[in-house]
Amino acid sequence: MTPDEPAPQTPGPATDEPTVVRLRRQHDGQPSTPDLDLHETVQGRKPGSRFLRLTRAGEQKLRRVGEGEFEATQAAMRPTTPVGRVWAGARRVLIGAPLATADLPHERLSKFKALAIFSSDNMSSSAYATEEILLVLILAGTASLSLSLPIALAIALLAAIVATSYSQLVKAYPRGGGAYDVTQETLGVLPSLLAGSTLVVDYILTVAVSTAAGVAAITSAAPELLDWRVEIAIVFVVLLTIGNLRGIRESGSLFALPPYLFIVAFGGMIAVGIIRLALGHDMTAAAPPNPVDAGTHAVTLFLVLRAFASGAAALTGIEAIADGTPSFKPPEAKNASITLYWMAAILAAFFVGTTLLATQMDVAPSETKTVVAQIATTVFGEGVFFYLVQVTTAMILVLAANTAFAGLPTLASVMARGGDMPKQFAFRGDRLAFSNGIIVLGLASCGVLFLFDADTHKIIPLYAFGVFMAFTLSQAGMVVHWRRSRGPGWKLSLGVNALGCVVTGVVAMIVGGTKFLDGAWLSMTAMAILLLVLWIIRQHYKDAENQLSSGLAGAEGVAQHFYSASSGRPQTVLVPVETINRAVLRTMAYARTLSMNAIAIHVTDELELAEPLRQQWEESVPDVPLVVVESPYRSLIEPILAYIEGLDRTQPNHMVTVVLPEFVTKHFWQRFLHNQLSLRLKKALINRPNTVVVDVPYHLSH
Amino acid sequence: MTPDEPAPQTPGPATDEPTVVRLRRQHDGQPSTPDLDLHETVQGRKPGSRFLRLTRAGEQKLRRVGEGEFEATQAAMRPTTPVGRVWAGARRVLIGAPLATADLPHERLSKFKALAIFSSDNMSSSAYATEEILLVLILAGTASLSLSLPIALAIALLAAIVATSYSQLVKAYPRGGGAYDVTQETLGVLPSLLAGSTLVVDYILTVAVSTAAGVAAITSAAPELLDWRVEIAIVFVVLLTIGNLRGIRESGSLFALPPYLFIVAFGGMIAVGIIRLALGHDMTAAAPPNPVDAGTHAVTLFLVLRAFASGAAALTGIEAIADGTPSFKPPEAKNASITLYWMAAILAAFFVGTTLLATQMDVAPSETKTVVAQIATTVFGEGVFFYLVQVTTAMILVLAANTAFAGLPTLASVMARGGDMPKQFAFRGDRLAFSNGIIVLGLASCGVLFLFDADTHKIIPLYAFGVFMAFTLSQAGMVVHWRRSRGPGWKLSLGVNALGCVVTGVVAMIVGGTKFLDGAWLSMTAMAILLLVLWIIRQHYKDAENQLSSGLAGAEGVAQHFYSASSGRPQTVLVPVETINRAVLRTMAYARTLSMNAIAIHVTDELELAEPLRQQWEESVPDVPLVVVESPYRSLIEPILAYIEGLDRTQPNHMVTVVLPEFVTKHFWQRFLHNQLSLRLKKALINRPNTVVVDVPYHLSH
Repeated sequence: MTPDEPAPQTPGPATDEPTVVRLRRQHDGQPSTPDLDLHETVQGRKPGSRFLRLTRAGEQKLRRVGEGEFEATQAAMRPTTPVGRVWAGARRVLIGAPLATADLPHERLSKFKALAIFSSDNMSSSAYATEEILLVLILAGTASLSLSLPIALAIALLAAIVATSYSQLVKAYPRGGGAYDVTQETLGVLPSLLAGSTLVVDYILTVAVSTAAGVAAITSAAPELLDWRVEIAIVFVVLLTIGNLRGIRESGSLFALPPYLFIVAFGGMIAVGIIRLALGHDMTAAAPPNPVDAGTHAVTLFLVLRAFASGAAALTGIEAIADGTPSFKPPEAKNASITLYWMAAILAAFFVGTTLLATQMDVAPSETKTVVAQIATTVFGEGVFFYLVQVTTAMILVLAANTAFAGLPTLASVMARGGDMPKQFAFRGDRLAFSNGIIVLGLASCGVLFLFDADTHKIIPLYAFGVFMAFTLSQAGMVVHWRRSRGPGWKLSLGVNALGCVVTGVVAMIVGGTKFLDGAWLSMTAMAILLLVLWIIRQHYKDAENQLSSGLAGAEGVAQHFYSASSGRPQTVLVPVETINRAVLRTMAYARTLSMNAIAIHVTDELELAEPLRQQWEESVPDVPLVVVESPYRSLIEPILAYIEGLDRTQPNHMVTVVLPEFVTKHFWQRFLHNQLSLRLKKALINRPNTVVVDVPYHLSH
Repeated sequence: MTPDEPAPQTPGPATDEPTVVRLRRQHDGQPSTPDLDLHETVQGRKPGSRFLRLTRAGEQKLRRVGEGEFEATQAAMRPTTPVGRVWAGARRVLIGAPLATADLPHERLSKFKALAIFSSDNMSSSAYATEEILLVLILAGTASLSLSLPIALAIALLAAIVATSYSQLVKAYPRGGGAYDVTQETLGVLPSLLAGSTLVVDYILTVAVSTAAGVAAITSAAPELLDWRVEIAIVFVVLLTIGNLRGIRESGSLFALPPYLFIVAFGGMIAVGIIRLALGHDMTAAAPPNPVDAGTHAVTLFLVLRAFASGAAALTGIEAIADGTPSFKPPEAKNASITLYWMAAILAAFFVGTTLLATQMDVAPSETKTVVAQIATTVFGEGVFFYLVQVTTAMILVLAANTAFAGLPTLASVMARGGDMPKQFAFRGDRLAFSNGIIVLGLASCGVLFLFDADTHKIIPLYAFGVFMAFTLSQAGMVVHWRRSRGPGWKLSLGVNALGCVVTGVVAMIVGGTKFLDGAWLSMTAMAILLLVLWIIRQHYKDAENQLSSGLAGAEGVAQHFYSASSGRPQTVLVPVETINRAVLRTMAYARTLSMNAIAIHVTDELELAEPLRQQWEESVPDVPLVVVESPYRSLIEPILAYIEGLDRTQPNHMVTVVLPEFVTKHFWQRFLHNQLSLRLKKALINRPNTVVVDVPYHLSH
C-alpha cells in the first residue's frame, strides 16, 4: 500500500503485520480505524504499513512515508483549544492560510508584478528628489534654481551606471542577498557585516522617507490634514506591515495596480507639460503658498554638491531587485536584470522631466505644497487630474515603503542563516514571508517617523549615505569576483563594476560630507552600532558552535565515544516537598520512575514542626527517604542548594535531577498565586553544572 | 558526639561507622576533612555522626542534627557568584544582615519604642485635623470657625470610646490582625475580607495623607519648595520603604527620636500658647498669606457633620497597635493596651489644644501656610522655635506613614497564611519584616501621591470612611466574641464594644455620606474591587487545596494507595533534535538514563535534507531510534505535538517526558540568541496532561 492511498474507514481485518496495526474500541462502542503503534514502527521498522489516523475526528495529522519517517499534514497545524482556534481564525483573516513549501514556486513573481513590488521605491523618488535639490539651491536665491537641471542630468547618468553595475551583480549572484552576499564571498566578514548594517538602516529609512513623502503629497492636496501627518504616516506603516505579513504573492496582487496608475498619471503630467511648453503656452507656476525664503549664499561648489547629494536620494531602491532576485520567476537573473533596466529608465525619465518642468515653470519650493503638486496644478489646474496625480503619487510613495518590506526580511533571513543575525530572523513563519523581519521593520520605521515628525526634509539627510556605501561595497566585491572567476568577457565586466565602484564611492563621500551635520552622522552612528551588534552576535554564534562541536569532528566514531562517555552517569533525583498532597504524590511517583535513587527534601523553620509531615511521609511514600533541613534564617532555597552541594561532594560525577511539581492553572491570573518556590529554585539552579530541573505539571481543573 | 561540638579539622581515624564518613584526597594532595555521605546517612540512618563540611573553604553549610535531619547555617546563605556577592553586599548595607528565627524575641518592641512606631500616625493627625475642620466651616463664613472647638471635643470623646473598645480587642486577640482577625473568627469570611480590604486601602491612604501633610509643613516654612511637593513626597516614601525593609528593630531605633521630639515641640507650642493666652497677651494671628475665600453658606447640620467627618480623620491609626500587638515585648496585650491609651490621650490633648488656640487666635485657613504653622508663628514668631515645630511636625508626619509600613505587611502576612492573599505575602524574607507587603505599600502610596498632587485636602475625603468601617466591623465582632466567651465581666465588655460599634458605625455613615462626592466613592470603589479580588483569591486557593487533597483524607493508607497507583506508569522519553553536537549528545545520554524507552525526533522541511543527519545519528547514538518528520508547512512545533498524540493513542496510560537541551549563556543578552525552539515547545506542551518537560542545561562558557 503506498502512502497516497486513503486510509480505510472501516476496521477490516488486521494486516499481515499485526504488531504494527492495532484494533481498538473507542468509548462510544464504535470500532476505531486501525492505529499504528508509532513506537513499534520506529523500533520494529515495518515499512509499507497503513496511514496513521491520530485524531479523534479521524483527521490524519501524521502520514507515515517510510522507515521512521513521517509527514505532517495541515491537520497537524489546526489548533485544538478554543482560544487557539479564535487566534488562528483571526490570523487567517489578516494574514491568510498557511502555505506549504511545495507551493513556493507558484509564489514567484512575474516581471510585471516584480516591477510593481521592487521598483516603487526607486521610481517614486522622482516625487521628492527634485524638491530636495531646489530646497538646497534656494539658499543661493531663486536665480540659482535653474542649476537643478544639470544636477538632475548628472544623477540620471549616475543611475545608468549603477543600474549597469547591478545588472551584472544580479547575474553573478541570483540567490539574493545583494551587497551583503557579494561582500561576504569576496571581501570577507567585516565588509559584509558593514554592508548588512547599512542596508538594514537604509531599509528602515526608506520606509520612513517614502511614507513621509506620501503623506506630504496628501497634505499638498488637503492642507487641513497637516497636523495629523505623523498619525497618518504611522497608520500607513501599520497597514503595510499587515499586508506584508500576508505573504509575497498577496503583496504582488494587492500592490501591482498603484505603481502602474502612478506611471500613467505622473508620466501623463510630464508629457502634457512638455507638449504644452513646446506649443508655447504660458506655463509659469502661480506663486506657491508659504514659500521657502530665498537665501543670499553664493553659489559655491559645496552648495552644488549638497544639492547633488540631496537629489542622489533618488537612486535608493535599486538594490532591492538584487536582494529580491530569488522571488522572480525563472530565469531569475535575466528577468531581474530586465526589470532593473526598466526601473532605472522610468526613474531617469520622471526625475529629469520633473526637474525640467520645475525650472521652466519657475516653481519655487513651498513649506506646505510639494513641487510636484505645484507642477500638477500648473499643468492641469486644480481639477480631477491634479487630484489623480496627488493620489497616485501618495499611493506609490507609501507602497515604495513596500520595497523595504520585501527586501529587509529576505536580507535578515540570509544573514541569520549565515549566523550574522539572531536565529529568530531565519525562521520562516507559516507564511512564506519572514514575519520577524517584517515586524521589526514596521516598528523601527514608525519610531523614525515619530522622532522626525514624519517630515521628509528632516529624514532625507540621514538617508542616502548608507545606500551609496552599500553600492560601493558591492561593486568592490564584484571587482574581486571578476578577477577571481575570469569568465568570458570578465575584463569588460570588471571595468564596468570598477567604474561603478569609484563613482558610487565618490558620491558616498559627497553625501556623507555635505550632509554630515544635517543628520548623516546619526545614520552613520546607527550603522556603526548595528555593525558592532552584528559582529558580537556573529562571534557569539561562532563561539557557541565551536564549543558545541569541539572534539566531535575528525575521526569517525568520536561522537559515539562522547555519547558513551556521557551515558551511564550516576543519577540522584531530589524532590523538594512542602506538604503531602496529590501533586506531591504524583511528582514523587514520577521521580521514582526516573531513578531508584530518589530523595525528598523538606525545609522547615523548626524541626519539630516537620514531625507530623515525617510521620505521614513514612506511611505514604515508604520507598523514598525524606530529609528534613531546619532553616533558622527562613530561607527555602539556600538549604536545598547546600544539600545538593553535599551530594556533589559524595558522588563527584553524578547528575542531580531536581523534580518540582508545577501547577498549571486554568486561568492566566491564577498563575501568580502558585509556583513561587519552583520559580525561585529554578533560577538558583540554572547556573549549576550537571543539574537538571524537571517540572511535573499538575493541572488544576478550575 | 553532640551537634554542638566543633568539627575536627584533621582527618583523624575513621569513626566506628565507616560507611558514613569517608576519607577523600582533594586535588592539591591535602587530605580533606571527613565528609558525610548524605545519601548513606539518609538511607542508613546512622545517628550521631560527625558534622558535615560541605564547602571548599571548610565552611559548614549544613549541620547534621539527627536522623535525616539537618540545620542550615549562615554559611549556606552566602552567595557564591561574584554578582551574587555584590548584590548581597548592597542588600546588607541597605537592609542589614539576615536574622535567625531564634533572634525574633529580641526584636520585640518596648512600649517606649512601640509608641514611636505605632502612634505617630494617630498623634500626628493633630497637625492637619483642625485645619480640615476649618476648611469646611469657612464655607459658612469666618464667624462659623468657632464651631470647631465643640466639634474637636466631640472627636476627642470619640477617640476615648474607640481606644477603650480597642484595648479590649487587643486583650482578646493578642496575636495581631486586628479587625480582620476578629471578624474572621466571629462574623465569618465575607466581613473579614471586607475588613481586610478596607484596612489595606486605608494603610495606603495613611502613607499618602501623612506624607502629603508632612510636605505641607515643610512648604509652610519654605514656600519656594511648593512646586516640588510631589517629588519630595515620593522621595520620603522611598526612604521609608528602604528603612522598613531593614526590619522592625532598626525601624524602632531609627524612628524613635522624631516622635518624641514632636511631642516636646508641639506640646511646648500648645502649652506656651495657652499660658500666654491665660496671662492675657494679645495673641491674634496675623492675616494668613493666600487666605481661603470665606463662603456664604448657612450653618446647616450637613455642614457641621461634614466638618466633623473631616476632623474624624484624626482617629485613623488607632488600629495599628491592634494589628501590631505581636511585636510588643511580653506581656504583649497589656503593653499594647497601655500604649494605646497613651496614644489616644496625647492625640486628644494635641488636637483639642490646637483647635482651642486656632479659635482664640482667629486663625483662618490659607492655601500655602498650614493652620499649625500660623499658630506656631503667633506663639513663637518666625524664629528658631517656629522652625522646630515645623520640622518636627514634618518628621512625625512622614514617620506616621511608617505606622502603615509596620501594620500592612503584618496584616498581609496574616491574611496570606489564611489563604486570603497571594502566598508571596506570607513569605518572610531573610529579614523579619515582610518585604513584599512593604514594597507593594510603597508603590501604591507613591501612585496615590502622584495622582492627587500630594495635596492633603484632595486625599482626606478618600480616607476616613474605611477606617470607621473597620472600627465598626471589629467592634461588632467583639460583641459576638463576648457573647460567645462569657468570661468574667463579659456583660460590661460587651456593652463597651456595642457602644463603640454603634458610635463608629454612625460616624462611618456620616463620613461616607458627607464625603461621598468629594472622593469617598473612589476609596469605596477601591475597597469593593479589592474585596472581590480577595474573594476570588480565597476561592481559588480553597479550590486548589480541595483538588490537591481530594480522596487523600479519611482512611489510613489512602495517600499510600494513591502514590502506588501513580507509580510505575510506562514512560516514553522524547528528545527533539535539530543537529548533532555536544549539547545534543549530552542530552541524549541523560535521556537514556531516564528511560530505556527513549526516542529522538527530527523535524525537517524535506526528508532528503535529513538523510545526512540520519546516517550520522545511527553511528553516534546507535541505541536510540531517530524519527524524522517532514513538515511541509515549515512548522517545528505541531509535528512534534502530533507525534506525541500518536504515542498517547498507542500507550494510553503512559507519561511522556520531553527532554530539551537548554543553553545557559554566560551573559544575559546572549539568552535571546538561543533556546527559541525550546521556549516555543515548552509553551505548547504545558497544557498537555501527563507530559513532563525536562531542560538539560548546557553551559556555554563564553
